[in-house]
Amino acid sequence: MLVRLMYASRALATVSQDDLNAILRKSKSKNPPNGVTGVLCFSDGLFLQVLEGGRSAVSALYNRIAADPRHTDVILLSFEEIGERRFPHWSMGQVNVTRLNPALLLKYSETAELNPYAVSGRVSMALVEELLATAAIVGPA
Amino acid sequence: MLVRLMYASRALATVSQDDLNAILRKSKSKNPPNGVTGVLCFSDGLFLQVLEGGRSAVSALYNRIAADPRHTDVILLSFEEIGERRFPHWSMGQVNVTRLNPALLLKYSETAELNPYAVSGRVSMALVEELLATAAIVGPA
Amino acid sequence: MLVRLMYASRALATVSQDDLNAILRKSKSKNPPNGVTGVLCFSDGLFLQVLEGGRSAVSALYNRIAADPRHTDVILLSFEEIGERRFPHWSMGQVNVTRLNPALLLKYSETAELNPYAVSGRVSMALVEELLATAAIVGPA
Amino acid sequence: MLVRLMYASRALATVSQDDLNAILRKSKSKNPPNGVTGVLCFSDGLFLQVLEGGRSAVSALYNRIAADPRHTDVILLSFEEIGERRFPHWSMGQVNVTRLNPALLLKYSETAELNPYAVSGRVSMALVEELLATAAIVGPA
Amino acid sequence: MLVRLMYASRALATVSQDDLNAILRKSKSKNPPNGVTGVLCFSDGLFLQVLEGGRSAVSALYNRIAADPRHTDVILLSFEEIGERRFPHWSMGQVNVTRLNPALLLKYSETAELNPYAVSGRVSMALVEELLATAAIVGPA
Amino acid sequence: MLVRLMYASRALATVSQDDLNAILRKSKSKNPPNGVTGVLCFSDGLFLQVLEGGRSAVSALYNRIAADPRHTDVILLSFEEIGERRFPHWSMGQVNVTRLNPALLLKYSETAELNPYAVSGRVSMALVEELLATAAIVGPA
Amino acid sequence: MLVRLMYASRALATVSQDDLNAILRKSKSKNPPNGVTGVLCFSDGLFLQVLEGGRSAVSALYNRIAADPRHTDVILLSFEEIGERRFPHWSMGQVNVTRLNPALLLKYSETAELNPYAVSGRVSMALVEELLATAAIVGPA
Amino acid sequence: MLVRLMYASRALATVSQDDLNAILRKSKSKNPPNGVTGVLCFSDGLFLQVLEGGRSAVSALYNRIAADPRHTDVILLSFEEIGERRFPHWSMGQVNVTRLNPALLLKYSETAELNPYAVSGRVSMALVEELLATAAIVGPA
Amino acid sequence: MLVRLMYASRALATVSQDDLNAILRKSKSKNPPNGVTGVLCFSDGLFLQVLEGGRSAVSALYNRIAADPRHTDVILLSFEEIGERRFPHWSMGQVNVTRLNPALLLKYSETAELNPYAVSGRVSMALVEELLATAAIVGPA
Amino acid sequence: MLVRLMYASRALATVSQDDLNAILRKSKSKNPPNGVTGVLCFSDGLFLQVLEGGRSAVSALYNRIAADPRHTDVILLSFEEIGERRFPHWSMGQVNVTRLNPALLLKYSETAELNPYAVSGRVSMALVEELLATAAIVGPA
Ligand SMILES: Cc1cc2nc3c(=O)[nH]c(=O)nc-3n(C[C@H](O)[C@H](O)[C@H](O)COP(=O)(O)O)c2cc1C
Ligand SMILES: Cc1cc2nc3c(=O)[nH]c(=O)nc-3n(C[C@H](O)[C@H](O)[C@H](O)COP(=O)(O)O)c2cc1C
Ligand SMILES: Cc1cc2nc3c(=O)[nH]c(=O)nc-3n(C[C@H](O)[C@H](O)[C@H](O)COP(=O)(O)O)c2cc1C
Ligand SMILES: Cc1cc2nc3c(=O)[nH]c(=O)nc-3n(C[C@H](O)[C@H](O)[C@H](O)COP(=O)(O)O)c2cc1C
Ligand SMILES: Cc1cc2nc3c(=O)[nH]c(=O)nc-3n(C[C@H](O)[C@H](O)[C@H](O)COP(=O)(O)O)c2cc1C
Ligand SMILES: Cc1cc2nc3c(=O)[nH]c(=O)nc-3n(C[C@H](O)[C@H](O)[C@H](O)COP(=O)(O)O)c2cc1C
Ligand SMILES: Cc1cc2nc3c(=O)[nH]c(=O)nc-3n(C[C@H](O)[C@H](O)[C@H](O)COP(=O)(O)O)c2cc1C
Ligand SMILES: Cc1cc2nc3c(=O)[nH]c(=O)nc-3n(C[C@H](O)[C@H](O)[C@H](O)COP(=O)(O)O)c2cc1C
Ligand SMILES: Cc1cc2nc3c(=O)[nH]c(=O)nc-3n(C[C@H](O)[C@H](O)[C@H](O)COP(=O)(O)O)c2cc1C
Ligand SMILES: Cc1cc2nc3c(=O)[nH]c(=O)nc-3n(C[C@H](O)[C@H](O)[C@H](O)COP(=O)(O)O)c2cc1C
Repeated sequence: MLVRLMYASRALATVSQDDLNAILRKSKSKNPPNGVTGVLCFSDGLFLQVLEGGRSAVSALYNRIAADPRHTDVILLSFEEIGERRFPHWSMGQVNVTRLNPALLLKYSETAELNPYAVSGRVSMALVEELLATAAIVGPA
Repeated sequence: MLVRLMYASRALATVSQDDLNAILRKSKSKNPPNGVTGVLCFSDGLFLQVLEGGRSAVSALYNRIAADPRHTDVILLSFEEIGERRFPHWSMGQVNVTRLNPALLLKYSETAELNPYAVSGRVSMALVEELLATAAIVGPA
Repeated sequence: MLVRLMYASRALATVSQDDLNAILRKSKSKNPPNGVTGVLCFSDGLFLQVLEGGRSAVSALYNRIAADPRHTDVILLSFEEIGERRFPHWSMGQVNVTRLNPALLLKYSETAELNPYAVSGRVSMALVEELLATAAIVGPA
Repeated sequence: MLVRLMYASRALATVSQDDLNAILRKSKSKNPPNGVTGVLCFSDGLFLQVLEGGRSAVSALYNRIAADPRHTDVILLSFEEIGERRFPHWSMGQVNVTRLNPALLLKYSETAELNPYAVSGRVSMALVEELLATAAIVGPA
Repeated sequence: MLVRLMYASRALATVSQDDLNAILRKSKSKNPPNGVTGVLCFSDGLFLQVLEGGRSAVSALYNRIAADPRHTDVILLSFEEIGERRFPHWSMGQVNVTRLNPALLLKYSETAELNPYAVSGRVSMALVEELLATAAIVGPA
Repeated sequence: MLVRLMYASRALATVSQDDLNAILRKSKSKNPPNGVTGVLCFSDGLFLQVLEGGRSAVSALYNRIAADPRHTDVILLSFEEIGERRFPHWSMGQVNVTRLNPALLLKYSETAELNPYAVSGRVSMALVEELLATAAIVGPA
Repeated sequence: MLVRLMYASRALATVSQDDLNAILRKSKSKNPPNGVTGVLCFSDGLFLQVLEGGRSAVSALYNRIAADPRHTDVILLSFEEIGERRFPHWSMGQVNVTRLNPALLLKYSETAELNPYAVSGRVSMALVEELLATAAIVGPA
Repeated sequence: MLVRLMYASRALATVSQDDLNAILRKSKSKNPPNGVTGVLCFSDGLFLQVLEGGRSAVSALYNRIAADPRHTDVILLSFEEIGERRFPHWSMGQVNVTRLNPALLLKYSETAELNPYAVSGRVSMALVEELLATAAIVGPA
Repeated sequence: MLVRLMYASRALATVSQDDLNAILRKSKSKNPPNGVTGVLCFSDGLFLQVLEGGRSAVSALYNRIAADPRHTDVILLSFEEIGERRFPHWSMGQVNVTRLNPALLLKYSETAELNPYAVSGRVSMALVEELLATAAIVGPA
Repeated sequence: MLVRLMYASRALATVSQDDLNAILRKSKSKNPPNGVTGVLCFSDGLFLQVLEGGRSAVSALYNRIAADPRHTDVILLSFEEIGERRFPHWSMGQVNVTRLNPALLLKYSETAELNPYAVSGRVSMALVEELLATAAIVGPA
């Protein structure tokens, strides 16, 4: 049973680029053996992550991530059983979103700020897809 | 909650190009901080404005505009909750419609005059969209 | 309220090209002030006319035409409220159909003759549309 | 080809109950041989009539009625090809609507007045159907 | 053109039962001549009002109400062109909601409080409809 | 934003009826203030719980439950944004399923055992609904 | 491959009740061995027959009937592959239609006469179904 | 009323190319005056013919063909009322199918043989359409 | 993964009531441990069996049955993944069909004989369902 | 009646390339006379085969293959009646899948391994179609 899960969270103020790189390295080593793929966006102190894989693997990973002390306010945005993945190629892609296009944010939000807490999961998914189509997927430094 | 609102109104006979410019300047300074975007059409003494943004921001702005003494017969044409904006790029675009194409008006109306008071909001929206596709968006003088 | 009306009728045997031209001239002077547009086909002694415009204007014009002694057997083929016109550009276009393509007629009819009296209004409308796509719109001599 | 046609018109101020009865008697004698059935509503000086039958018969009758000097502003409200009639039983039923229920009128109109000129044909048809379900069909005096 | 509009607002803290009665008396005298009907709910210092009628009449009334100093935070919840009214019988019904059923509120909201500002207009409309089905419509004292 | 979440988990072998009662008491005291409602099924050492409420409240509670050491293999079964709740009445109902009907289990599973780990979330939801329709909701001892 | 076929024809002027009985007796003896079932209506000198069965059996029977000199103008009205029969019980039911209800005929036709030649096969089928629901199925004298 | 009819039959063993040519010549002289168009395929001793035209004309012609002694096992494959013809251009086209592509036959059949008796009419129609798209329409020698 | 499979086969001429009873006893002892349920019909020397259960269990059982020398011409009629079973109650119900109702058979077949080899699997399933609704489920003697 | 059947199985450990070639040679000689076409994939010790053809031929062949001692765990994945084949050209194509693309496998599976036993038949069919679009069809050595 394949599923796709998306959540958002707030990074602790103290999270540095090094911490980010550590998370990505960890993902890239631990996700493939569990058949998990996906994308991680980081911007304005917010994480937005999409996880795809077997239902047990994704649930177990999400539960572990939700308990990770490096972020807080972990909120589920969507979870669905799927017929096929959208991100079979990436153990964990990283979207480089240091400066988001305000019009792109406005398109889906009340103000030009990334705020997954205020919108439907469907809207955040649409935003991630537009980001993927326009921004570069980058690896850790 | 994003919404899109459209209304029409009749400008007081005394409204000049300077007044129009003042309205646009005001919109361009006040709309962005409230996350409001949209388009304002002026032709034949009629205003047709589309406002997009958060529901509270759009409602508050509409209520303020409806009380503005520079126009009268302010009539709601449409209001809907939306998943994404059509005009995320413009704090307030202005459609320059000094001379409208009669065939375009006839396409949606009984006579070759702009008359949002006589047609469904859906029709006025279709007209605005054709205008946007054919006319130039201009800024204040 | 915009409507589209189509009717057919049989011209009196005595109708000449001059009569036709008189009808077209009359249409071109009287339809625009009433916001009426449309197309008139003449072939084999049959008229097929599409009228678009405000409901009152189209009804009044149709009632006047139905009483015109130059034709008879005036039969309504279709009447519908529409969101937009198909012929906003013509006060009254004339389709020149002195020789119709038999295969085109056969496509919609039992025999290779124009016979709107024998088919559904929907079929006559389809025929008019194919005529418009293939034949030239001409003006009065 | 069966069709259903509905129109509205304004009775001349001078139309009396006797005139009405004459119209109904005429309908009851002339409609059956032509296979025409239907309903005639009269209220507040307005006629609203539904005619069902063969397309030629209904067109011919409508054209004759439209030219009748006892009424004016004859406006087509709807016309459609149908699979079956709604009024196969009445050569011409008469709806007795001297006093209409205001809530019924308000349900479909802006004010509590019968005004088929201001609403879509679909709405007038819905009103006629509610009238038929609640008011009595009566014959001429 | 019939429309239905719903809005919510917060009553000023000073609004008394007498003020409410004054509003209802005013509505009952001014709405009928304008063909406006509807329902007004008051609970926990919040107004929720549905207005039905001609588009111009409803717009004008809403604009006037939005400027009324007895309430604030007037927010549009829904506005749509309709084929028929739901409240043709009431110049302005009043829903007596001194104590709302918590399960009913929970059914549509995150917490057991009436909060139209936090939910979609569609949800508030569903709530009003359940209220109407279960609570009594009462008149002013 | 209302959501409904369902998960399954395996109770540690040591979980007693007292532990169950403690969980239910905790739920009944902590869920109402957070606007959370739902149902908890326990059978054959498996938990199946449905949580309804605001998205933040449900996410926070689920994250806390997932970390609870009294159970393991916590697996998400479904998560969706909803227009209205199914369980607005229960702070946390308990389904008494000491002996499940084998035909009911077979209806949705390969064998007559409760195994949410082997079936689609949609199937587990259907099973819960049938249980609710047939079994009694009971409170803690 | 099961099919249902309907045709109409005109009986020769000379067809008597005895001839009818002969046809029915023939049908009742020959149809069952071929797995053919159906209904035969006779009224006003017109036959309307529905045949159901295997495609080869129905085709062969229709071809034989079409060549029968007791009727003429044999016209196919409908033919379709079906999942199940409507008349599995009758080797050949006979609808007794000496006097048809005029309103029933008018419901589907331009005039109060049975005229399958003038209407769509779908309409004749609807008429047969109403006949079956209201008239008695009878056997030969 | 336009219809399209398709049937299949087995040519008597004695049918020669001359017989075929005679049939085509006859069709080309008799079909146009009756408004009948269509296509005739001959292959492996089987005829497959599509006839389009007025319902009476097609029925009469089919009845005549069904009685023609040059073929046998005449079986109806499909018959439907249509809005427009597919073959308005050919009085009777002939598809030259001396050697059919086995993959084309297999695509729709159990074996690589033309066998309209074993498949649904819809399948034979699909086969004819593929033949028309790939094979040449030829005339009589 | 739940599936439903239906097949038909011809019993060897030598199959007796004792053989049948042996098959049913075997089914009732071997199916429950594998989570297989279903129905077996026997009539006119034909078997028609529906098997429901996990995909592996049903496949393995079907493969074993297909190789059973007591019947031949084993033909698959339908196989689908299902959300829920229709026969969760029976390890293997037996439909007693010594004398089938001819009208029931005719309803779905060309002749009044049970012939699953000649019809679509959908049709056989419909027949089984009607049998179940009308005939008694019996156990072995 | 055309059908398409797909199954999976595990090759015995001892199956060599020669055995594979023998199976393909056998298929290529025996399938055409029975009108069977299809595709055979072999990878990682698993067979995945699609068979298309007449229902009896495909059933008989599947039953024979299921009893073949060269493989085990033969499991049905899908079976459906079809209007047309997808593989009319190949008596039995062979997909060369010595090294599968991991992303392609991940797209449809929990892990990067071919495992038709763990997924829906619809998913395996999608995988086969992607394989066919990207891998080469090869013949036996
Ligand atoms: C925002 C965020 C995203 C993460 N994504 C992943 C991930 O995709 N895969 C992963 O294994 N760990 C991820 N982690 C790290 C886990 O929370 C956890 O630290 C890690 O799985 C523990 O691995 P370990 O057991 O090897 O120490 C993420 C952490 C954070 C804060
Ligand atoms: C047709 C029309 C359109 C207007 N559009 C806007 C607008 O988009 N944004 C805005 O802030 N004010 C708009 N205004 C002006 C407002 O009515 C009001 O004057 C202004 O918001 C007051 O701003 P202030 O509070 O800064 O004086 C518009 C006025 C008119 C007559
Ligand atoms: C086939 C036919 C089509 C006509 N079409 C139009 C038309 O589109 N517009 C129009 O004004 N008159 C049309 N007429 C003429 C009217 O019947 C009528 O003569 C005319 O409107 C009277 O104009 P008047 O009042 O200026 O004399 C048509 C007449 C015929 C016979
Ligand atoms: C509102 C109205 C409705 C009418 N309805 C009918 C009708 O249904 N049938 C009819 O024959 N005449 C009807 N008439 C009368 C026709 O206009 C016309 O006078 C009549 O058909 C002429 O009949 P005659 O040719 O026998 O004089 C109606 C007239 C009016 C004003
Ligand atoms: C919550 C609320 C609802 C109201 N509803 C109505 C109404 O339905 N109709 C109405 O005429 N006035 C209504 N009013 C009052 C109007 O705001 C305004 O005071 C009134 O229309 C002015 O009438 P006047 O011009 O006769 O003084 C409402 C006011 C409030 C605060
Ligand atoms: C199967 C299961 C279901 C639970 N359900 C709830 C619940 O609905 N609400 C709740 O507050 N705690 C629930 N809990 C308990 C929480 O995991 C946690 O112990 C509790 O919320 C902590 O509350 P405290 O912070 O007051 O100690 C559940 C625990 C388990 C094992
Ligand atoms: C209107 C009509 C309906 C008929 N229906 C049937 C029928 O349902 N079954 C049938 O066998 N013959 C029917 N017949 C008779 C056939 O045309 C034909 O005479 C008969 O099948 C020949 O049978 P025979 O070969 O036993 O003489 C019908 C004839 C007519 C005129
Ligand atoms: C397979 C086949 C197809 C035929 N197609 C036609 C046709 O399309 N048109 C036609 O008039 N005759 C066609 N015929 C011939 C008719 O059966 C019949 O012989 C002819 O219409 C008689 O014409 P006649 O009355 O002029 O002798 C066809 C015959 C066969 C065997
Ligand atoms: C028509 C038919 C239906 C059968 N149905 C079942 C069945 O539902 N379950 C079953 O276990 N065996 C069934 N069998 C018997 C099997 O073919 C086989 O004999 C049996 O499973 C072998 O069991 P054993 O391994 O215990 O000897 C059926 C046999 C026939 C001929
Ligand atoms: C995986 C697999 C696929 C097979 N596919 C076919 C096939 O498509 N056609 C076929 O005739 N035999 C196929 N066979 C072989 C049959 O199982 C069986 O050996 C063969 O049909 C017997 O043929 P024979 O009766 O000529 O010996 C396949 C065998 C295996 C193991």
